[in-house]
Amino acid sequence: MAGTDKTRDATLGGPVVVLIDPQLGENIGMTARAMLNCGLTELRLVRPRDGWPSEAAQSAASGADQVLERTRLYDTTAEAVADLARVYAASARPRGLVKPMVTPRRAAGEMRAALAGGASVGVLFGPERSGLVNDDLALADTLLAVPLNPAFASLNLAMAVLLVGYEWFQAADDTPGRRLETGGQPPAEKAELVNLFQRLESALDETGFLHPPEKRPGMVRNLRNMIQRMDPTDQDLRTLHGIISALRSGRGKADD
Amino acid sequence: MAGTDKTRDATLGGPVVVLIDPQLGENIGMTARAMLNCGLTELRLVRPRDGWPSEAAQSAASGADQVLERTRLYDTTAEAVADLARVYAASARPRGLVKPMVTPRRAAGEMRAALAGGASVGVLFGPERSGLVNDDLALADTLLAVPLNPAFASLNLAMAVLLVGYEWFQAADDTPGRRLETGGQPPAEKAELVNLFQRLESALDETGFLHPPEKRPGMVRNLRNMIQRMDPTDQDLRTLHGIISALRSGRGKADD
Repeated sequence: MAGTDKTRDATLGGPVVVLIDPQLGENIGMTARAMLNCGLTELRLVRPRDGWPSEAAQSAASGADQVLERTRLYDTTAEAVADLARVYAASARPRGLVKPMVTPRRAAGEMRAALAGGASVGVLFGPERSGLVNDDLALADTLLAVPLNPAFASLNLAMAVLLVGYEWFQAADDTPGRRLETGGQPPAEKAELVNLFQRLESALDETGFLHPPEKRPGMVRNLRNMIQRMDPTDQDLRTLHGIISALRSGRGKADD
Repeated sequence: MAGTDKTRDATLGGPVVVLIDPQLGENIGMTARAMLNCGLTELRLVRPRDGWPSEAAQSAASGADQVLERTRLYDTTAEAVADLARVYAASARPRGLVKPMVTPRRAAGEMRAALAGGASVGVLFGPERSGLVNDDLALADTLLAVPLNPAFASLNLAMAVLLVGYEWFQAADDTPGRRLETGGQPPAEKAELVNLFQRLESALDETGFLHPPEKRPGMVRNLRNMIQRMDPTDQDLRTLHGIISALRSGRGKADD
């Protein structure tokens, strides 16, 4: 199956992934899984060595069937990229070709801009052992190389696809870098927190823990700060109240 | 083998990767490969299902032997993290635990800061099918979740490790986002470029291509700009000169 198909819009759903001469069906399946992890669904294969469809691919895809079902076969790289306007080639070894080279992070921004402008985009990946040949690189606008440990830079094929897809996904993701995951529980209001502080401090005053008086203000500040750092929910405050009661009563479950 | 070993400094070489109850040796090997791709070398295993060492791991590691040779076994998660000061747990499902959650990108910056401050750092990954249990999550400071396609978010184990290692590596990498890869060839100096422009334009003047005269300035600007966009090297300019000569002479190889 070759040539362009205008009913399949390559600008939908992100960049097309094109595997040239892939060897192992398992790697094709893992590629499909990694693509779908990142919301990519358009996979093209040029001359898969072990044929297509592939049971090994099906098994390794771990449920990414919608990618495998849409996968298309091509006889040549030129046919596989015929309907694409921007083509990246995953290669760390340009081997004499003078060519722009980008990181996956930079490529992600460029690809989003190109797709937003109506240009279809694809990324070429070469066979497992040898990578893309120069005739394929010459069909690409830009080389794409992942900055990695120079002493051990050879990525598994599906892992290379994952990193491109990952950066693609992150470029439009607005997940905060750090947040408190509470399962829907709101953080406690400060009045409840101060209520706990005062109860704990008066209990500790009774025991003499906050002596001598001149050190009490600093000790109280430290205690309050430790509990603030916990960023407690209402449920956490109830637990802390229970602990205070239990320890005061000397029994496991105490009435307050 | 369990417990701390102060002769193995967990602050060297980045975060420790801890796999809890990993099932497939192949995934352990792919994890080792992905780690070394990102410059990470310290792998710990808690109760690997299929035993250790593992031929499947060795084969899948594709040469990341230095990671497998250093890999240590533990009976419990508590023992595996005993010498660590900051522990992240890869989990998208906190299941009722209130806990800070970070992205891999944010974690990378935090881990670099912690390690620079002398704190040892590790990341826990759960078994392939089920992920980390809450008793393991309770040993961690922070959850680590990769923003991915919510409809298909289940990552292969080694791929999850790769994304954490990838962000770790990128956080200290200064590869420019886009550059021209020339294989050492310098870009042409502008005088050589102008020399080519003038030769091309005079050749085109002879043919009448740049008529009528009032359109010539705009056509010249466009031609010069097209060639500028090619960002040519000296070798490229020689090739372009040769093409002009060849087309003028009407023969494949022309003396100029």
